[in-house]
Amino acid sequence: MKNIYFDYAATTPVDKKVLDEMIPYFIEKFGNPSSVHDLGREAAEAVEKAREQVADFLNCNPAEIVFTSGATEGNNWAVKGIVNEAESQKSKAENQKAKTKSHIITLSIEHHCILNSFKAAEKDGVETSYLKVDKGGLVNLEDVEKAIKENTILVSIMYANNEIGTIEPIAEIGKLLKETNLKRKKNNLPKIYFHTDAVQAINYLDCDVNKLGVDLLSLSAHKIYGPKGTGAFYIKQGTKIKPIQYGGGQENNFRSGTHNVPGIVGLGKAISLIPEHRKKTEEIKSLRDYLVESILKNISGSYLNGSKKFRLPHNANISFDGVEGESLLMLLDQEGIFVSTGSACSSSSLELSHVLKAIGVSPGLSHASIRFTLGKETTKEEIDFVLKILPEKIEKLRKISGM
Amino acid sequence: MKNIYFDYAATTPVDKKVLDEMIPYFIEKFGNPSSVHDLGREAAEAVEKAREQVADFLNCNPAEIVFTSGATEGNNWAVKGIVNEAESQKSKAENQKAKTKSHIITLSIEHHCILNSFKAAEKDGVETSYLKVDKGGLVNLEDVEKAIKENTILVSIMYANNEIGTIEPIAEIGKLLKETNLKRKKNNLPKIYFHTDAVQAINYLDCDVNKLGVDLLSLSAHKIYGPKGTGAFYIKQGTKIKPIQYGGGQENNFRSGTHNVPGIVGLGKAISLIPEHRKKTEEIKSLRDYLVESILKNISGSYLNGSKKFRLPHNANISFDGVEGESLLMLLDQEGIFVSTGSACSSSSLELSHVLKAIGVSPGLSHASIRFTLGKETTKEEIDFVLKILPEKIEKLRKISGM
Repeated sequence: MKNIYFDYAATTPVDKKVLDEMIPYFIEKFGNPSSVHDLGREAAEAVEKAREQVADFLNCNPAEIVFTSGATEGNNWAVKGIVNEAESQKSKAENQKAKTKSHIITLSIEHHCILNSFKAAEKDGVETSYLKVDKGGLVNLEDVEKAIKENTILVSIMYANNEIGTIEPIAEIGKLLKETNLKRKKNNLPKIYFHTDAVQAINYLDCDVNKLGVDLLSLSAHKIYGPKGTGAFYIKQGTKIKPIQYGGGQENNFRSGTHNVPGIVGLGKAISLIPEHRKKTEEIKSLRDYLVESILKNISGSYLNGSKKFRLPHNANISFDGVEGESLLMLLDQEGIFVSTGSACSSSSLELSHVLKAIGVSPGLSHASIRFTLGKETTKEEIDFVLKILPEKIEKLRKISGM
Repeated sequence: MKNIYFDYAATTPVDKKVLDEMIPYFIEKFGNPSSVHDLGREAAEAVEKAREQVADFLNCNPAEIVFTSGATEGNNWAVKGIVNEAESQKSKAENQKAKTKSHIITLSIEHHCILNSFKAAEKDGVETSYLKVDKGGLVNLEDVEKAIKENTILVSIMYANNEIGTIEPIAEIGKLLKETNLKRKKNNLPKIYFHTDAVQAINYLDCDVNKLGVDLLSLSAHKIYGPKGTGAFYIKQGTKIKPIQYGGGQENNFRSGTHNVPGIVGLGKAISLIPEHRKKTEEIKSLRDYLVESILKNISGSYLNGSKKFRLPHNANISFDGVEGESLLMLLDQEGIFVSTGSACSSSSLELSHVLKAIGVSPGLSHASIRFTLGKETTKEEIDFVLKILPEKIEKLRKISGM
């Protein structure tokens, strides 16, 4: 049996069509897009084509897209860029009240790149709020509204959660913030910018930035069958944000550094293939439902974590009572079945998942959780193989734990 | 005639051997190094192998290497990371004197990623010094010494200049700073960290960090026949520096974000090939000398910019009196000869080169400058072709300018 990959939320293989598109830019068309000569112009055109592909997908102006090294950079940038710009404006302000430190809002279940960026901002004296979520992992619109203060300048809420796949009501929050900002303008209060980490959503959800009402959006190529090391960051025209990197002035002075041309070309191609991949969404969803329902039915003491309704179609996060998730992962690994405990990024740490904790999963069941994430290559045979293997592995582990 | 590339300082084609090494990591071995399963471990091992390859080359501990998106990131990090860490320590200090803003030193001819990082630090109140260079582009050791103040915490000096190829006396400055730091320790003054932007030096110069005496060093893969979008940053053990990106905790919490596995594998391979490439250094140097001498001899009003002695072997930066560099670049481009005016990064701006200005080149001759940078594929035939074409193009342009 060949390996079975159930970790598409951690990373995806590069699509053959994407790699084919990238290859010429390594050796043959290797120019630096900042060079004026022919080879440079050729590379610059490839970068601009990719920018249009990304802009098409997000329904924005290509000038509003900046290429990054990935969503972690974008997410760090959203927080640091908005906060630092606001703080540097304040330092020029004359009256003392205008000097009050800024306030920023996010979710308790965000990826660590947002949470740790918030922690870093706190150290600089910035006020922060971490909104709670319900048992499904959903934020309540009223909680967003209540959290807003006079000095709020940023709301950053993920589009879909990486561990439990919960889809947050981004468009509704966008609408709320739009109305709020209209009132704030009259009262001379600072605008609240709205950022979403869309890295897990891109493959499956509508990412039209106008419908979402976001000012900033981060994404990564390697989650959408594109290459690692490349991402895009949407910055709505007029957004007051500091550059992330200084230097040669690339990306309109917002993100200096030689363009990763093959990576950018790959990102453009990968994003342009999403509509084609989405034809498989329903199939992936039924496979996921089949996996979840079979497990819940056939394995006692198994529980689905997160919302059933507002959930990415490829995500299944399940706790198995009396089982150490890490041990189950290892046993499955031996069978060539690759799953994850929590998110890939923190999977090597033994800390309890902050996401499962936030939705009220007990420490015991949190340690007993496994994330299966399906992808466009997933087959029914693979699911059936897992369904065959899983009960015996769980029984084995429960015997060891004496359950 | 096929295209002739004389812009190796802007970027290099990826070596076939490097690309071959990268390819499996796009599709077949596509795991996320942070994943615990087999596919993740395989990717993690590839990253660690590359880290060893980089560490071998720099003669340091693999744990002292952090992978970045390129030298621009490394250079930004050096400045921001050292300054922010020092400032955050100060904010905790009790006595008022300890709260004096930090002072940082660099060269007037650095790449814009250093200069603009310094400008950004100035806006935060940090004191800066920009050291002058002589006509060859060389910094004077005494000037470094004189610039040091009680509150100095960082000296950042490029190993070799990107426009004129001048090699700075890094090892001597390293020695000076080591002695200075010994004295400062006794006087309870803050340590001065030493950073070098080695991006242009890696291909040709000894980069043993111990011999250089640096605490921080940045490099990029795409200047050494590796892929764009990947770099390495050396951080000497014990250096007090803030992380550049927060998130999943990759790279020992110093640089979060999913590893660019194929890029990192490519960087490792590229750096391991340098000793082999260096066998060609003497040949490249004689070709460069032949190019320069022939031009200076056969084209009146042509001048070599920068030091003859302390110069990278592949760099020729020449001004042609009465010629608009940009126009000459275009005429050569039509013949398939790719050169640069100044550095690639700022080549699309019409500003005068800050480097040529710093070494005393007049504005007229600065606008009339062309940079030729040779590489491992450069042949005598290519040089001869340029030497044939160049005089007629220059004559043409001088006629237009009425010279």
